[in-house]
Amino acid sequence: MSDVTATYLVPSGGDLHKKAENIALGLTVGSWTNLPTLEKQQLHKHKGVVVDVQDDGQNGILTVRYPSANFSHDIPAILTTVFGKLSLDGTIKLIDLSFSEDVARQFPGPSFGIEGIRELIGVYDRPLVMSIFKGMIGKGLDEFEQQLYAQACGGVDLVKDDEILFDNPLTPFEERVKRGKRILDQVEQETGKRVLYAVNLSGRTYELREKARQAKQLGASALLLNVFAYGLDVLQALAEDPDIQLPIMAHPAVSGALTASDQYGISNKVLLGTLLRAAGADLVLFPSPYGNVALKKNETIAIASALTESTVYRPSFPVPSAGIHPGLVPQLVEDFGKDAVINAGGGVHGHPHGAAAGATAFRQAIDAVLTNSQLTDAAYKKTELAAALEQWGGKG
Amino acid sequence: MSDVTATYLVPSGGDLHKKAENIALGLTVGSWTNLPTLEKQQLHKHKGVVVDVQDDGQNGILTVRYPSANFSHDIPAILTTVFGKLSLDGTIKLIDLSFSEDVARQFPGPSFGIEGIRELIGVYDRPLVMSIFKGMIGKGLDEFEQQLYAQACGGVDLVKDDEILFDNPLTPFEERVKRGKRILDQVEQETGKRVLYAVNLSGRTYELREKARQAKQLGASALLLNVFAYGLDVLQALAEDPDIQLPIMAHPAVSGALTASDQYGISNKVLLGTLLRAAGADLVLFPSPYGNVALKKNETIAIASALTESTVYRPSFPVPSAGIHPGLVPQLVEDFGKDAVINAGGGVHGHPHGAAAGATAFRQAIDAVLTNSQLTDAAYKKTELAAALEQWGGKG
Repeated sequence: MSDVTATYLVPSGGDLHKKAENIALGLTVGSWTNLPTLEKQQLHKHKGVVVDVQDDGQNGILTVRYPSANFSHDIPAILTTVFGKLSLDGTIKLIDLSFSEDVARQFPGPSFGIEGIRELIGVYDRPLVMSIFKGMIGKGLDEFEQQLYAQACGGVDLVKDDEILFDNPLTPFEERVKRGKRILDQVEQETGKRVLYAVNLSGRTYELREKARQAKQLGASALLLNVFAYGLDVLQALAEDPDIQLPIMAHPAVSGALTASDQYGISNKVLLGTLLRAAGADLVLFPSPYGNVALKKNETIAIASALTESTVYRPSFPVPSAGIHPGLVPQLVEDFGKDAVINAGGGVHGHPHGAAAGATAFRQAIDAVLTNSQLTDAAYKKTELAAALEQWGGKG
Repeated sequence: MSDVTATYLVPSGGDLHKKAENIALGLTVGSWTNLPTLEKQQLHKHKGVVVDVQDDGQNGILTVRYPSANFSHDIPAILTTVFGKLSLDGTIKLIDLSFSEDVARQFPGPSFGIEGIRELIGVYDRPLVMSIFKGMIGKGLDEFEQQLYAQACGGVDLVKDDEILFDNPLTPFEERVKRGKRILDQVEQETGKRVLYAVNLSGRTYELREKARQAKQLGASALLLNVFAYGLDVLQALAEDPDIQLPIMAHPAVSGALTASDQYGISNKVLLGTLLRAAGADLVLFPSPYGNVALKKNETIAIASALTESTVYRPSFPVPSAGIHPGLVPQLVEDFGKDAVINAGGGVHGHPHGAAAGATAFRQAIDAVLTNSQLTDAAYKKTELAAALEQWGGKG
């Protein structure tokens, strides 16, 4: 069968079988029971099918299969089919989505993925460390260069723009790309370490592709995209473009408007996991379960699983973000394993000895965890880590 | 001031002034209090400003102004600024959004709007009537032509594709456009009445513009777009394109994932009203307050007001949809006035004498309301209306 299967969370009670059947028909052939036999034969391959109906007394869970004969194989058509009108139809949340293999293969998945990004930076055996520019709005290119240099020198693997830094006269996109490359080349010469910088690709939708191609030409090493301010199909187009071919980091901005309710919208697993991976995100940021802006841990694990489980696509890097400091590294590795990116903003810039020391402290914490040392033991010999643990605390 | 002002609904209680200040700073310059005076001067024009804080004991309402110096003047940048990270930050809903006039003028608004569409079809003095193809999935072009002809002959002003009918081998987009034009030209010759057909513009984002231009060349009269399966900026690009210039009908598919929760996401007024109008939707479909798939009446009125109130843009046509039958016309006119589109699917096709009679019954109901007649009185002389009232009921 060639199809897309969607699972919905609805309130418990009532005739859920009938509800599921109404969905399966209403979003495909419209009606069924009273159709003439000939029309039933004609429409059979278009008819939605109820796969499963559960009611545990608290929630109803309905699973419906939609034949792929009904939609073009693009995300807008699939979303409109499985959660278009239905998103407006009372209390209902889309909690799972899967494609038959032939449909899945219509989507690119990540061009680089975990392995490809590890090859780009030559780091294979540990979680990566990423840091974020801090407070760049209203600042110029000198500040940009200083911040990038400090972060990269400290040993991070990736640096990303803040998602609210758009193309602007003080730090124009093109200049960020060019100067970013120069600084990172310099850091590589000085330290031997290759660092990627994800520049925020922003502006009008129909200009993004050309802008990304130019960025590639100018030596960009990665792109940041506010996918949900555009559309998943835009991400896919960028990932597929042979003239771009840069790692794409998907930012979750605006996604909370779709995912935050328990009763409505789309689950984090589907939106930030399944769909971002299919559309080609190489790295996916999502709120970590540790900070103020937090997701429940089971939701973050579900996202990370959807990004890394075995499918037809390369795995994407999970990037749990917000509230991260070196003392959390043991917990991060326990929860997300080695194939994750540890992403710190305040945890790098807020280090008492500056951003370079902040980055170094993360690397020291990772080394300690991977050699089964307690952070507090490692901190005896590592002043940056010691200062970080003093600042933010951290379990051993 | 050049800015965008956003209003948020949050839970009551706690220090809401501090919360608002954290938003205003966190989404602009990052920090403020401890900055050196020189930096404060430099950053002053970038700093977010708390405009208002209310707490009525049930809800908190925070209003924050974001200087336009911080973002490029496109919807993705604005959405990312005002509700990017913030959408992920606990219980919060974006309930209002306004642009200073210079920012507003960066957006096109509708190319046609209410007046332009009235001119296209030559109808100035009454609500318009629209009907929808029924069950076209799995059906061919003969069925398409028959349904279009029947609906158009009955006196509707617009006919739209079902939003789940994508480009497909049985009824390809190009053929629907060409045959649609032929049928509607025929109807105009026979009845003197001009009818618009909104073909569902679907497929990959970066193909939509060219496809819409081709549709225009082939004689398309209007476009339907599942805006929220793509992105608001895509709608804007289509509306602005000088080689398209067709009325664009925005379908609310998927929007419920953003709007349905009382506590999270984006209000219907902002999403389906303010933003769709700014981006250039000429007609905006939304669930009526009458049917099974219903919005609360105050939400539908808020959408309609945002679409029609005096701004720098042309007004867009509100199209309350779902659960509409001729007996509801008096209520529809009372709630939405003459400048609305009465949109019926089942209310046309489910008429006991067929779709043409269904369309006619709506026109008869509108005539009755506009001449201050009771529907039941009008039905004495109008058999189609009489049959509709018998089928679905209706207050006088």
